[in-house]
Amino acid sequence: LDAFQTLAYKYARAIDQRDLDGVCDIFTDDGRISGPGFDMSGRSGFEGMIKQVSDNFLKTQHQVFNVLAEIDGDTATGETYCQANHIIKNEDGSWLNHAWAIRYQDSYVKDGANWKYKARKLIVDWTTNTPAGPLNLGERT
Amino acid sequence: LDAFQTLAYKYARAIDQRDLDGVCDIFTDDGRISGPGFDMSGRSGFEGMIKQVSDNFLKTQHQVFNVLAEIDGDTATGETYCQANHIIKNEDGSWLNHAWAIRYQDSYVKDGANWKYKARKLIVDWTTNTPAGPLNLGERT
Amino acid sequence: LDAFQTLAYKYARAIDQRDLDGVCDIFTDDGRISGPGFDMSGRSGFEGMIKQVSDNFLKTQHQVFNVLAEIDGDTATGETYCQANHIIKNEDGSWLNHAWAIRYQDSYVKDGANWKYKARKLIVDWTTNTPAGPLNLGERT
Repeated sequence: LDAFQTLAYKYARAIDQRDLDGVCDIFTDDGRISGPGFDMSGRSGFEGMIKQVSDNFLKTQHQVFNVLAEIDGDTATGETYCQANHIIKNEDGSWLNHAWAIRYQDSYVKDGANWKYKARKLIVDWTTNTPAGPLNLGERT
Repeated sequence: LDAFQTLAYKYARAIDQRDLDGVCDIFTDDGRISGPGFDMSGRSGFEGMIKQVSDNFLKTQHQVFNVLAEIDGDTATGETYCQANHIIKNEDGSWLNHAWAIRYQDSYVKDGANWKYKARKLIVDWTTNTPAGPLNLGERT
Repeated sequence: LDAFQTLAYKYARAIDQRDLDGVCDIFTDDGRISGPGFDMSGRSGFEGMIKQVSDNFLKTQHQVFNVLAEIDGDTATGETYCQANHIIKNEDGSWLNHAWAIRYQDSYVKDGANWKYKARKLIVDWTTNTPAGPLNLGERT
């Protein structure tokens, strides 16, 4: 797997599993995640982000699509497309998928043999709200 | 293309084209696909799965996103994100996309130079039902 | 990044950014994009396509999924899955995501060290229309 794709997939997995160590492992110590209305940096910042995800959503899936990066020595910059799906449990028990169509503006640095994120800045192109639910096999037939 | 991504893409193509040989080619002889309410193994099991897909859905598209795998000698394990889109033709002729947000729990073995699936276990995080239809270019303008 | 994935991602970025040079760079001089109701070739053809995208849609995101290709010497053929999301601004100001579930039938040629598209033929398996909107952080909480 290409290094930059792998990073984007590991980021998704770490957020989706609420794995703070997993997030910290792929960022530099001063790594930063920012976007409209938020700007978090370092372990304590990421801890707050994971708590917010955990508090607000039943499940998430960060589906990663296009990954492009340009390498310039030991740094790189690029753009990554992703749909961040956030499942909300409504008061009546039904589920809603609140999804963000994201283009991450990424900057990377090489740390020894490995690339890490220095910063991910989110551009959210649009959002959608779609009724969802758990799998019900009876529904298919 | 990375070996594990290629496998996931070939799996999608084989199911979407109802290609039994295509499925068998990428699994070990005792390969297994299991999930909530189903557990299929080997050529005859996969034949039943393809028949079920073919009987129930007009079209399918298995859109593959994140692919992560850890190699341990001649075996590997990993997780693959995928949205399985199943187009249903309603009695009134309209179309519905019954979609599953899947995280495959994959195990692989190396067969000579090639990796194959030993097992794919589906976790279905949620489903959605979205009205769909054939392309109608007049609609765009 | 694999050469064929990179091409598909660059195609998406070029269309999404209305970047005519970006499109021309990844096609042969006689390159062609065709599908139901359209058939465009060369720089002037692609210019018309970008103008149409720009005139009709507020934003687009071509989310690329599965990329498979078979190399035969200096040519290759393959199939690429993509969801082309087209955001339409309705007269009342609300947004709609008019999305195409595409399988590009791709043919490639090697131009020196680089692969380029010779042709992309779109199969549109289905379309969906989903209400969308700009990010509203208040909505989450």
